[in-house]
Amino acid sequence: MTKPIKLTNRAAYQRFVDRYDTFLLDCDGVIWSSNTVIPGVLQVITYFRKKGKQLLFVTNNSTKSRAGNLKKLRSFGLEASEEEIFSSSYTAAYYLRHIIDFPKEKKVYIIGESGIEDELNMMGIKNTKADADNGPIQNWDFADITPDPEIGAVLCGFDTFINYRKIAKAFLYLRTDPDCLFLLTNDDTTFPAIGTVFPGAGSLSSPLIIALNRKPDRVMGKPNKPMLDCIVDKYRLNVERTCMIGDRLDTDIQFGINGGIATLLVLTGISTEKEILAEGAPILPDYYVDSLSNFAEIIELEN
Amino acid sequence: MTKPIKLTNRAAYQRFVDRYDTFLLDCDGVIWSSNTVIPGVLQVITYFRKKGKQLLFVTNNSTKSRAGNLKKLRSFGLEASEEEIFSSSYTAAYYLRHIIDFPKEKKVYIIGESGIEDELNMMGIKNTKADADNGPIQNWDFADITPDPEIGAVLCGFDTFINYRKIAKAFLYLRTDPDCLFLLTNDDTTFPAIGTVFPGAGSLSSPLIIALNRKPDRVMGKPNKPMLDCIVDKYRLNVERTCMIGDRLDTDIQFGINGGIATLLVLTGISTEKEILAEGAPILPDYYVDSLSNFAEIIELEN
Repeated sequence: MTKPIKLTNRAAYQRFVDRYDTFLLDCDGVIWSSNTVIPGVLQVITYFRKKGKQLLFVTNNSTKSRAGNLKKLRSFGLEASEEEIFSSSYTAAYYLRHIIDFPKEKKVYIIGESGIEDELNMMGIKNTKADADNGPIQNWDFADITPDPEIGAVLCGFDTFINYRKIAKAFLYLRTDPDCLFLLTNDDTTFPAIGTVFPGAGSLSSPLIIALNRKPDRVMGKPNKPMLDCIVDKYRLNVERTCMIGDRLDTDIQFGINGGIATLLVLTGISTEKEILAEGAPILPDYYVDSLSNFAEIIELEN
Repeated sequence: MTKPIKLTNRAAYQRFVDRYDTFLLDCDGVIWSSNTVIPGVLQVITYFRKKGKQLLFVTNNSTKSRAGNLKKLRSFGLEASEEEIFSSSYTAAYYLRHIIDFPKEKKVYIIGESGIEDELNMMGIKNTKADADNGPIQNWDFADITPDPEIGAVLCGFDTFINYRKIAKAFLYLRTDPDCLFLLTNDDTTFPAIGTVFPGAGSLSSPLIIALNRKPDRVMGKPNKPMLDCIVDKYRLNVERTCMIGDRLDTDIQFGINGGIATLLVLTGISTEKEILAEGAPILPDYYVDSLSNFAEIIELEN
């Protein structure tokens, strides 16, 4: 493995920016941290736009559609368009329609929130809604949990309304039809909220994995490949001139490595310089920098 | 490993019965199968009683208390007393009170059904009830999921009312207090119902295991040791003269082996003679017999 290059001065920042046409940006830990935007980052993003760089905001959050994620970006003062957002919910819809040509007559059974349903609907993919029918099982009544030959895929994401009926249905669909696809939006075991972490989509899908003794066929989100396959397919990207920018070695940087694109780690989030410099570090970025805001030095020069 | 002895004639049945004072009996697959009692088995149980054998009915079902399990036995025409039943719910209560002396001032947080709550209450162990407070999380409101220093153990069993709030609470209790015990009633990944199987307690506990990256401290039910430790402790059994009778190699027979007691496999349930006779079979009983009802041959002789 090549030693990562630390970007520490204007000339290095400039060379880096010139070398790529497209930046894939993780958000939490790169643009904002603890719900506060990192000072200087918004100017850098505006500068990237001025220089004609293509920007894509990539997030494993499946609970929101692209529209929902856009609202969140705007709440941090970041102007963007829906077309610049790639969430794991949108990835799932794109993957089913454009990568594997999911049969039009088949339905997707969702364990997840409205973001997934919205994106599948917009892509014209039939799906089961998280409706009242999905309340908890009462009085040990399993009678309505029966195979459904219309279901062609089970798609599991994060779901604060998860319950036993949903788990049992998904289990039965997958168990009775070996051709039924088993997909996860993402496999993050936890996610950050209110200053701590809580069990994430990668934990909520585990009852299915354990009960079926079967791994998912595909996981959409970082660090897995489908999200990048979809991005490259949709935007016809030149992978040689694309760089993933993120704060986590095990998700963001591994994602870039898996997809064969360049990677830049910022030190404003989870992963540390110590981890990179450790002997035998398993995941290394091509570049790293203290903060995305460091690139503001180029702007000052140009002004 | 010693080759298992197949019991095939009256003399062998008689020797087996004479050799043990206590029989631990699994129920499904031994006494009944597909909700029908196996012909001849009830007479054999009556005969065991007449001969002064101590009988204990052991079940991993945590959703019922001993009283609830007794009702089920009686529905099959099997007369028994509550004292003869050892369920994983009762085991959990017994274990906390008598094996580890769980602090009186601490509470147990339950993911599970009324069987667990009933047994803990009868043993005088404080616990959180599965009350309205445990409904699904609405509007992404995690604010009431906070550490609770009173919680000294999380006990997870099968729960048709499982939801994200329960998972998140249990996760937070275990994550914030490294001394908080992490217990499962049983780790069966599936259980049989309405002619198929559904995800069991061993699957429903997996989000905690994955999100915490921590294994449970103890699993109560078969094939794990705590259930037998509790049985031996409560009845002061002579393990030399105790035999486990069950239909599954990986739960019932492994349970007996783990506890250092004799084992008899019956072929009226899950495991087959072929599995026992296979080269390198990993789990072997001491004895096996086509059906528990075979022992009726001794009765005929005596009559």
